[in-house]
Amino acid sequence: MLTLDNIYKAGHRLKKIIRRTDLIPALSLSGANQIFLKPENLQVTGSFKIRGSYYKVSCLSDAEKARGIIASSAGNHAQGVAVAAAQHGVKARIFVPSAAPLSKIEATKRYGAEVSLVDGVYDDAYNAAIRAVEETGAIFIHPFNDVDVVAGQGTIGLEIIDQLHDVDAVIVPIGGGGLAAGVAFTIKKLNPDVRVYGVQAEGAAAMFNSVHGHTLSGIDKVSTFADGIAVKQPGEITYELCEKYLDDIVTINDDEIATAILKLMEDEKVIAEGAGAISVAALLFNKIPEKGKKIVPIVSGGNIDVTILSRVITRGLLTTGRISDLCLELIDKPGQLKEVAEIIADRGANVTKVNHEHGGEHTDINGCYLRLTLETRNHDHFHEIQDALRGAGYTFHE
Amino acid sequence: MLTLDNIYKAGHRLKKIIRRTDLIPALSLSGANQIFLKPENLQVTGSFKIRGSYYKVSCLSDAEKARGIIASSAGNHAQGVAVAAAQHGVKARIFVPSAAPLSKIEATKRYGAEVSLVDGVYDDAYNAAIRAVEETGAIFIHPFNDVDVVAGQGTIGLEIIDQLHDVDAVIVPIGGGGLAAGVAFTIKKLNPDVRVYGVQAEGAAAMFNSVHGHTLSGIDKVSTFADGIAVKQPGEITYELCEKYLDDIVTINDDEIATAILKLMEDEKVIAEGAGAISVAALLFNKIPEKGKKIVPIVSGGNIDVTILSRVITRGLLTTGRISDLCLELIDKPGQLKEVAEIIADRGANVTKVNHEHGGEHTDINGCYLRLTLETRNHDHFHEIQDALRGAGYTFHE
Repeated sequence: MLTLDNIYKAGHRLKKIIRRTDLIPALSLSGANQIFLKPENLQVTGSFKIRGSYYKVSCLSDAEKARGIIASSAGNHAQGVAVAAAQHGVKARIFVPSAAPLSKIEATKRYGAEVSLVDGVYDDAYNAAIRAVEETGAIFIHPFNDVDVVAGQGTIGLEIIDQLHDVDAVIVPIGGGGLAAGVAFTIKKLNPDVRVYGVQAEGAAAMFNSVHGHTLSGIDKVSTFADGIAVKQPGEITYELCEKYLDDIVTINDDEIATAILKLMEDEKVIAEGAGAISVAALLFNKIPEKGKKIVPIVSGGNIDVTILSRVITRGLLTTGRISDLCLELIDKPGQLKEVAEIIADRGANVTKVNHEHGGEHTDINGCYLRLTLETRNHDHFHEIQDALRGAGYTFHE
Repeated sequence: MLTLDNIYKAGHRLKKIIRRTDLIPALSLSGANQIFLKPENLQVTGSFKIRGSYYKVSCLSDAEKARGIIASSAGNHAQGVAVAAAQHGVKARIFVPSAAPLSKIEATKRYGAEVSLVDGVYDDAYNAAIRAVEETGAIFIHPFNDVDVVAGQGTIGLEIIDQLHDVDAVIVPIGGGGLAAGVAFTIKKLNPDVRVYGVQAEGAAAMFNSVHGHTLSGIDKVSTFADGIAVKQPGEITYELCEKYLDDIVTINDDEIATAILKLMEDEKVIAEGAGAISVAALLFNKIPEKGKKIVPIVSGGNIDVTILSRVITRGLLTTGRISDLCLELIDKPGQLKEVAEIIADRGANVTKVNHEHGGEHTDINGCYLRLTLETRNHDHFHEIQDALRGAGYTFHE
């Protein structure tokens, strides 16, 4: 059973391996409330997961350690287990779904673990790991449904209370619920007046459903780009702790998560993965019923593939009008491209992409389309350019 | 004259406004040496500049404060001055070149300063600021060539020595030289055994030239995307301190800076601007003659426009083979696009852009080009796909 003693012990053992991540006052997010980020994306291995896995491995007996450990994970847990095993001189084998981001796989190998790629999704990797445990007698390190793992994650609660003694509320991302269970338990035991809110992705809201329905239940499929919290089945241990100690759970959609990632990059200069940014998204989109309070969203991790990050940025730039696409119908005659280019340049926008194509059945035989991508300042700036083009007699397609 | 007393006094005054940024052990950069980032990109306003400008304003007499302050800046200094002025209840007017990134201009306004946009580059904004100082009698806050400003920046040296008492070397970005002068002076006075290296962009190496030529001299034009250190003319005060206290100055090109920005994003989860990443670039590209040492690169700022960041990412993905472009010559007949798509899909690459066009004078009348952009794992993965396409009889254009 989880006790505060457990968590203090975990905090002590973790001292030699983890960073006590500094709270960062987030001025740009502060308005109705004062916001302090707990940046576990800046933690060793890029996420909080090292806390639970390291403490779990440290609790194994010598005989257990000699059997080696096995885990299944698409990312952060894999890296945490790999480092924990290396630090304890234990052999680790991690089963990873083959679709996992290459960067996470490479990092796991670099930390010294053996990686077994399994065709399919997380559940397939999990099943392969369980088979290997049965065959080899190695110890399975569960990513969340384990008291020692939960105790390790709970050390974040100790740190927050210590770093901001008058904290009013904490916001915790939820996948399987290990982080939320540990943090909520720790904080409520130390100070029941502090509110602890959980946040899930709309497309992976198993714990939300379970807690709101008062029965542990899974979901058939998950749909969110926040892979770190894309979990179908919460654990019994984490469910009971979340049910008992969380004040509420809210959900956030993927567009809101993407906006939070961009906001954290631009204003706070840190990279969060989807799972890490969701706590900030809950604040940005007014899901947390607090006013004038000191609030700590836990930014749980930063292991996002840079190709995905690049798409998040592009989406954010389009949403805020800093990239704009337009398509003009031109008569195919000399001088038109020059005139359009002048109108745009005069208004200080930058053309980054040009595509000039002859039209289909709906255009004049001499007609063609000019598709442009522009760097603009905002939506108003783009509308100003559209008006100028319209004023010069151009028509827009679509 | 600069004294350690000055710097201690600055450290004391800054306590209520700045963050004492935590050193972050950068495992992915550590190899030959142990690297600890000093992340001033996570500082209030996103750069170290607030230290110098806040301390400078705090040193003004009440009569001087009543006259108001004026500054010229394309970015970080503007934000630092704006916050410093607001905190001291002083009126601030900042002259900004009209080409400055909108995000920096908006931030400066948000912090409460009046922004005057000046057509042209930094020097034009500087000249306009000096004229306004002459007309109004306001106090000019120089971005670097000022003993109090240098003292404020020097507080970073105090913190590093305190946070890592056995530090062997510190790496400092140089534009006008305020940061380098302050940090080198402070560290050498406290422990002359610690090496302090300066780093400049190849396209803006005025201080490098001055120190290596033992004469203060400017350059006619600057060429680097690291706008925070694109300075034509170092100051006399900063030149003399850099000449006396730095162990060496090295230079880094823009591609190397871009690589460092991407590395910091992917491995350390922080956003650095070009000027901020250059100290890390110096380590990555082996410009720092240290082995087996504890080294602190100062990541001086993170105020990079997200459109530029997006380009840096794309460039980095191309360089590391995670985005690949290819152009095939096709005979324009049914089924070819399907076959190419199959070959690519079978090898696990993702197609993100397709352009199909009829060829020019050098191709067969039935020929056409298929341009594709792929997400690949690395250069080897791309070569594997190229080989498979070649094996199926396709030829590449260009």
